[in-house]
Amino acid sequence: MAKTKVHTRSHYEEERERGDAGEWACGRWFEYALVVALAALLLLAALVLALFWALYYRQGFAWSDAPQRQFNLHPVLMVAGFVTFSGFSALLFRVCRCCRRLHVKLFHMVLHALAIPCVVVGFWAALDWHELQQPPLPHFHSLHSWLGLVTMGLFALQFVVGFFSFLVLLCCEGATAAFRAALVPVHAAFGITTFMLAIATCLTGLSHKAYELYGAFYPTSWSEEGIIINALAMVLVALGILVSYTVRREGSRGEGKTFLSERL
Amino acid sequence: MAKTKVHTRSHYEEERERGDAGEWACGRWFEYALVVALAALLLLAALVLALFWALYYRQGFAWSDAPQRQFNLHPVLMVAGFVTFSGFSALLFRVCRCCRRLHVKLFHMVLHALAIPCVVVGFWAALDWHELQQPPLPHFHSLHSWLGLVTMGLFALQFVVGFFSFLVLLCCEGATAAFRAALVPVHAAFGITTFMLAIATCLTGLSHKAYELYGAFYPTSWSEEGIIINALAMVLVALGILVSYTVRREGSRGEGKTFLSERL
Repeated sequence: MAKTKVHTRSHYEEERERGDAGEWACGRWFEYALVVALAALLLLAALVLALFWALYYRQGFAWSDAPQRQFNLHPVLMVAGFVTFSGFSALLFRVCRCCRRLHVKLFHMVLHALAIPCVVVGFWAALDWHELQQPPLPHFHSLHSWLGLVTMGLFALQFVVGFFSFLVLLCCEGATAAFRAALVPVHAAFGITTFMLAIATCLTGLSHKAYELYGAFYPTSWSEEGIIINALAMVLVALGILVSYTVRREGSRGEGKTFLSERL
Repeated sequence: MAKTKVHTRSHYEEERERGDAGEWACGRWFEYALVVALAALLLLAALVLALFWALYYRQGFAWSDAPQRQFNLHPVLMVAGFVTFSGFSALLFRVCRCCRRLHVKLFHMVLHALAIPCVVVGFWAALDWHELQQPPLPHFHSLHSWLGLVTMGLFALQFVVGFFSFLVLLCCEGATAAFRAALVPVHAAFGITTFMLAIATCLTGLSHKAYELYGAFYPTSWSEEGIIINALAMVLVALGILVSYTVRREGSRGEGKTFLSERL
């Protein structure tokens, strides 16, 4: 029965009851905070690099009247939605340990909700760009588009299932506690999978773009734009590793075990 | 002092002592076995798909006399080394719970050692292919090559540090137990990171190759080879998710916690 009330308490309170808080209060918090800070910094860096690339090297943004500049919306908005907003949403869910669970959930949902318009407009910009080519490019033939479709499908599923299960079902809190508890690890596992898929999709997209710009014949002297593209890719890879580590790892390494916060 | 003897016992014996074995004996073993079996199947499928692609669509293998066929060695050997051998090595370290720890370690090392000639020849084939182009292609300008270099560096570091720390240092077992225990989680974390990096590098390479074959103008009807490339990419993504899940998740989900086998 205690479980039905669990969402009204903070992460910290639960840990104190379990006796974990004292152990965590020492150096491990510092290590964890450092990793989280680095992840947050890289989440912003990815967006800044994508924006810098589009504005400085690709002549900024437009809509159908300038298809090439319309396309620039695609990488920037996809990085903003799938990487920056989603990444912050995942990080904040773990980091906000002193807030009420319901507030953390709402914040998690709002950040993911902010990603939706980015993804929709970014997706539309790429589709429209395909149509405006002479001859029009076929849709969903590339490796990048296949990965992108799977990522978008998983993201939508996660959002709808998460919204109904962890927020709407709170209206009959007691009756749904067991169901929600069972769903938490599934939601967490699919969440980090969606994030990793998004990173993989971004990497194939960037790789595609680099080939479009340089072909097999990369410039023999270093190209500034090429370095920016590669740097963005390396930031994305680092994020894939760091966010995955931050989300999964919540316990004491010394004891040879890890706690996942699989709670309501 | 008990720790110094720990590597001579099997995983299963340790778990039985901790009281975990009974819990694991039930349905969770079945779920875990299913995931491991699927991962093993996909590790083989990735290699088979890469081989099928090279032999059926890319005219098989050669060395410097036929640069294009020489290049075909690169994707096949890199998938074999970085994905299939490394993946099996990671899986088997987790799955062989009834064997003596030293035997499991040796098997883990041998499988990684088998990856080394694959990676070296695969890397050489790509370098040589670059040189044989007219004009020769510059090295290490692409996103794929940057990711590949980081992956190879981490792999080499992991192999050397792992070999000396977990095998050579056993010669003075008691004195090095604490150091080895502290190194295990680091080795595990960097191991899964190397595997994820390898998957990301493969995806950018495949994406590159698809662009080389089709350019921006993908065929309007489906290309068989394109589907094979995309299918290989999807298998690699699924492997990234499954192997990561299998290696990290070793405990009881119902209890809301996960045990990493961070042992000597």
